[in-house]
Amino acid sequence: MTTADDRKARAKAWFEELRDRICAAFEAIEDDYHGPLADRPPGRFVRKPWTREDGSDGGVISVLRGGRVFEKIGVMTSTRLDGMLSPEFAKTIPGAEKDPRFWSSSISLVAHLQSPRVPAVHMNTRHFMAAQSWFGGGADLTPMVPNDVDTRDFHAALKRACDAHGADYYTRFKAWCDEYFYLPHRGEPRGVGGIFYDRLDSGDWEADFAFTRAVGLAFLEVYPQIVRRRMSETWTEAEREHQLVRRGRYVEFNLLHDRGTQFGLKTGGNVEAILMSLPPEARWP
Amino acid sequence: MTTADDRKARAKAWFEELRDRICAAFEAIEDDYHGPLADRPPGRFVRKPWTREDGSDGGVISVLRGGRVFEKIGVMTSTRLDGMLSPEFAKTIPGAEKDPRFWSSSISLVAHLQSPRVPAVHMNTRHFMAAQSWFGGGADLTPMVPNDVDTRDFHAALKRACDAHGADYYTRFKAWCDEYFYLPHRGEPRGVGGIFYDRLDSGDWEADFAFTRAVGLAFLEVYPQIVRRRMSETWTEAEREHQLVRRGRYVEFNLLHDRGTQFGLKTGGNVEAILMSLPPEARWP
Repeated sequence: MTTADDRKARAKAWFEELRDRICAAFEAIEDDYHGPLADRPPGRFVRKPWTREDGSDGGVISVLRGGRVFEKIGVMTSTRLDGMLSPEFAKTIPGAEKDPRFWSSSISLVAHLQSPRVPAVHMNTRHFMAAQSWFGGGADLTPMVPNDVDTRDFHAALKRACDAHGADYYTRFKAWCDEYFYLPHRGEPRGVGGIFYDRLDSGDWEADFAFTRAVGLAFLEVYPQIVRRRMSETWTEAEREHQLVRRGRYVEFNLLHDRGTQFGLKTGGNVEAILMSLPPEARWP
Repeated sequence: MTTADDRKARAKAWFEELRDRICAAFEAIEDDYHGPLADRPPGRFVRKPWTREDGSDGGVISVLRGGRVFEKIGVMTSTRLDGMLSPEFAKTIPGAEKDPRFWSSSISLVAHLQSPRVPAVHMNTRHFMAAQSWFGGGADLTPMVPNDVDTRDFHAALKRACDAHGADYYTRFKAWCDEYFYLPHRGEPRGVGGIFYDRLDSGDWEADFAFTRAVGLAFLEVYPQIVRRRMSETWTEAEREHQLVRRGRYVEFNLLHDRGTQFGLKTGGNVEAILMSLPPEARWP
C-alpha cells in the first residue's frame, strides 16, 4: 500500500467512524429524553447509500426525521475515488492543470431541533487529495434564542481542539468562520460562529489529520452536552415562531451564499444530499 | 412636458392604478369568502412607503397577511427617478456607457394562498428608460395540486392579451416563461408557466404600453376568477403538506435562480421588498 493509499483509507475510515459515533450519541439523546413531545417514539437514523451518475459509489445519507428532540438531522459521508477537477477549479491548484484527478472524502452534518431553546448546528470536515492535498472543515452553532452559556461552551471546546494543534489556529479559524457564515443582504451573521478552515496543509500530514479528528471529537463532546442541557426546557409559541423565522435566514444563507451548495448544485451533485441542510420547516411572515 | 416626461408619468400612474385595482379585487375576495377559516376577519393590505439610502422615494410595499383566503400577498410598486446603471449593465445597452442614467417604474406581486387547492401566482410588469427604453414583465401560475381547468383559463387569458398585440407574442413569451421559471437542479418547472417578456421595444411606444396594460388587465380578470372558483373547497392535511413542500421549491427558485432577486440583493436593493415573494411557511421534510 502506498503512503497515499494508506492516508486515503485512514481518512475515509475516520469520517465513517465519526459518523457512527455521532449518530449513536444523537440516538442516545432521543432515548434518554423527557419533556415536551416525549410521547413520540425516539428518533432513529435511516441510512441510504447513493450512486453517482457514472455508477460509482456516492456515499451514505443518514437522516433522522421527526424525533423527540431532533426535528431533522442529515449526516452525509461521501468519498470520491476518481474525480476530475473542473478546468476552473484546477487553475486554483498548482500542478492540477497537468493532472486534474482528485480524491476526496468528507463528513457533513446539519441538525435542526424541535425546541427553539436548543441551538441548531453544522459540522463538516473533509480531506482532499489532488496535485496538492489538504484538510478543511469546521463547526458553527446557531442558537435560536440567544444563549451565552451554550455559545461560550461551544467556542471553548473548539478553542481547546485548535490550541492543541496550532498557536494561531483558533484566532484565524474563528475569524474565518465569522466572515463565511454572514448574510450580507441582511447585515446579519447566520449564528454565533465557531471555526472554519480550508486548504490546511502544514507540511505535516499526520498533524493536520490529527487536528481534523480533534475538531470532530470536540463537536462530539460539546454539542450533545448543549442539547442535553436545554432539551427538557418548555418553550413558548413565540419562541417557536422566532425559531422558524431564524430558519428562514438559514435557508437564505445556504441558497444565496453557501459556496458548497452553489458549487454542488451547479456541478450536478446529489440534490437530496446537498439540500439535506435545509430546515424541515421555515417561515417568512 | 416632454414626450419622455409624459410617458414616465403615464407608466407610473398605470402601475399604481393597477396596484389599487388588484388590491381592491383581493380584498373583495376576502370579504365575500365562505369556507374554512371564514371565522377570521377578512384580510386587508397594509401599505408601507420606503425610502432609498440616498433619501429618494423608493416605492410602496403593500402586504396582506393571514387573511381568510390569502396567507400572504406582497405587492410592490416602485419608481426610480434618477438611477445610474452599473458599468456591467450599461455595457448591455447601446449608448448607455456614455449616458448611464435610467428611469424605471414597476409593479410586482406574489400571492401565497391558505388553501393548497388555490394556485399561487406571480405577476410583474415594468417600464425602463435609459439610452434605450423598453417594457418587460409577465405572469405565471403555480398550482399546488395539479389542476387543468385553472391552468387552461390562465393561459387562455394571457393568450388573448398577447394575440391582440402581436401575432407571435404568445408563442414567444410563453416559451420564454417556461425557460425562465425552471429549476435545473431539480429538473422541474416552478409551476405551469404563463408568459415572460423583456426588453420589448417594437418601435411603437403606445402599442408596447398598451400590451403591458393588457397583461395587467388579463391577470386582474383571470386570477380572481380562479381564486373564487377554488377557495371554498375543503382540503386535506396531505394537500397542505404537499403545498408547503412545493413552496420550498418556490424558495429554491427565487434564491438560487431568479435573476431579479440576485441582482436586487447584490446591488443593495430593499431586502424586505425583494424577499416579500418568499412564502409565509415552507417545508423541506
